Amino acid sequence: MQKGKASIAFDHPPYITAASSVAGKKEGEGPLGALFDLVEQEDMLGEKNWEAAESRLQKEAAELAIQKAGRKAGEIRYLFAGDLLAQLIATSFGSISLEIPLFGLYGACSTMGEAMSLAAMAVDAGYGDRCLAMASSHFATAEKQFRFPLGYGNQRALSAAWTATGAGAVVIEGKDGIKRGKGEELKPLARISGITTGRVVDFGVKDSSNMGAAMAPAAFHTIWQHFQDFERDEKDYDKIITGDLGIVGQTILLDLLHKEGYDLAGIHMDCGLELFDRENQDTHAGGSGCGCSAITLCAYILPKIQDGTWKRVLFIPTGSLHSTVSYNEGQSVPGIAHGVVLEHIEEGW
Amino acid sequence: MQKGKASIAFDHPPYITAASSVAGKKEGEGPLGALFDLVEQEDMLGEKNWEAAESRLQKEAAELAIQKAGRKAGEIRYLFAGDLLAQLIATSFGSISLEIPLFGLYGACSTMGEAMSLAAMAVDAGYGDRCLAMASSHFATAEKQFRFPLGYGNQRALSAAWTATGAGAVVIEGKDGIKRGKGEELKPLARISGITTGRVVDFGVKDSSNMGAAMAPAAFHTIWQHFQDFERDEKDYDKIITGDLGIVGQTILLDLLHKEGYDLAGIHMDCGLELFDRENQDTHAGGSGCGCSAITLCAYILPKIQDGTWKRVLFIPTGSLHSTVSYNEGQSVPGIAHGVVLEHIEEGW
Repeated sequence: MQKGKASIAFDHPPYITAASSVAGKKEGEGPLGALFDLVEQEDMLGEKNWEAAESRLQKEAAELAIQKAGRKAGEIRYLFAGDLLAQLIATSFGSISLEIPLFGLYGACSTMGEAMSLAAMAVDAGYGDRCLAMASSHFATAEKQFRFPLGYGNQRALSAAWTATGAGAVVIEGKDGIKRGKGEELKPLARISGITTGRVVDFGVKDSSNMGAAMAPAAFHTIWQHFQDFERDEKDYDKIITGDLGIVGQTILLDLLHKEGYDLAGIHMDCGLELFDRENQDTHAGGSGCGCSAITLCAYILPKIQDGTWKRVLFIPTGSLHSTVSYNEGQSVPGIAHGVVLEHIEEGW
Repeated sequence: MQKGKASIAFDHPPYITAASSVAGKKEGEGPLGALFDLVEQEDMLGEKNWEAAESRLQKEAAELAIQKAGRKAGEIRYLFAGDLLAQLIATSFGSISLEIPLFGLYGACSTMGEAMSLAAMAVDAGYGDRCLAMASSHFATAEKQFRFPLGYGNQRALSAAWTATGAGAVVIEGKDGIKRGKGEELKPLARISGITTGRVVDFGVKDSSNMGAAMAPAAFHTIWQHFQDFERDEKDYDKIITGDLGIVGQTILLDLLHKEGYDLAGIHMDCGLELFDRENQDTHAGGSGCGCSAITLCAYILPKIQDGTWKRVLFIPTGSLHSTVSYNEGQSVPGIAHGVVLEHIEEGW
């Protein structure tokens, strides 16, 4: 059902029945390290290059999520997936062996939100019993893609974020399609009750080393739109969790919302600020990349929703829409943010 | 309604109510030249660089399609769009001023099929009264992105295609949302009765100057899957139209299908072979790029369906999933193809 200007409240809210997180070594050494399904100890994952390594992260995350849902790849109707690389090569090559019909997505670091939105739409509408939503990033592929060769030992701005190495995947299913355990129900992790889809928001920020500032207006716009569309405010949520605004972007977001009368101070969380220990891991503004929000969701957020610590969460991965070409041509860095409402499932669902 | 393994037959088939095509100068000089809504005579479109020019193509195509549907941008629920450039910058910057919630897509040159599939899914499910599907490419941005600086005057392989400069956009609406004319019905161009979504198909082709050969197996797979899912064959279609296989890819596709017992010789058409006069325009294997199938669809195919020349068409844009990085690292060039069934609307619809 359409809600307001940019939102959907699902008639048959789809369930997240399984989630997987495959993280890199540095992510494994961070505060969430013990929560990941798999921590890869070697940046190359045994592959010949970083791009192939990122594809492998996706393959592992997809296979693990499907297995946790008690399914085989052939039982997944559609794959909605993306990454940060030019022409989406991590996804294209990472998904060959899955043989699942693919909708390739690019939403920069908001991709996990975009993928979950479309997968939930497909399941709610009955286009598939179950879909897979996935996103990945890799520190080394992103540095090569967007910044400087690692060998330069380039100095990073304090406002810059550290691209996370990791892939997260969730299986999204309709109630009828869920595999039941022997004698007991396989209780899903969360229900997706609605979404709010973001538009490109350009506040004219031109510094690609300060993506938090570039994305904050987009996060603000999606949260604000979400509140209008659902006639809710921050008090209706236990947590409102952005993707990778980092410390700079968080400050701006809270300011922008405060001006509109919303106080998110105690409720806002940012995946980029949770993933790393900023002081001891030298990650400056925080973590970033599609993988940052994806693995934080799968390893940390969803379990907290499943166990009832949080009853209702607004998850809003944030993306910074630039390339080296657009940056070098003097363009600004617009942002986009896609919101997904995740709810705790009570006993007796 | 799900059909077979990878298809949907829509319960409430959405309508294409308007289509726009904005083409470059060379495309305007080709066999379809007289059919385009707009032919830009200058490659830069008055912008400072090629990327901004491609963004402008999208902006113009979007505004024109919306205007032809008798609507304003604010009445479009979602925009599904993409292009060939790294991090989708043509789309990101081209859609800022539209202020429509955006799902950014990357399916290489199959993007128009992906965009139309998702837009039709959203409309059929009632998530939006109308959506916009759009794709673009630009010869100069693509050469810079994938090949050599234009100034090199690099010699092209005969199997190579010529990336089209152009953007195509279609407005997809549910029956209830269609704007009626004064006293007469605004008859849509076509009905989207179903889709078949492709998966990544890798036959190990390693030559990015021969994308036709790389994409043909994907086109074959989607067409074959479509026939199985809908229990149809080539005799159920007036035309089966691929995106940009060109002369090399077409031969391979017809061969592959022939081995499975399907004879598409009189029915198959390829947008890349229609867009340019290969002999006099020196475009070698044919046209390519997301824009190639998008503008051929909007300017040439849809009018033929509207006037009843063709009653049922399978439109299958084809994409080649590589980047310069994957190519230089010795990876193969996998393909993907997304099928959309377009049907003529009889009088008294």
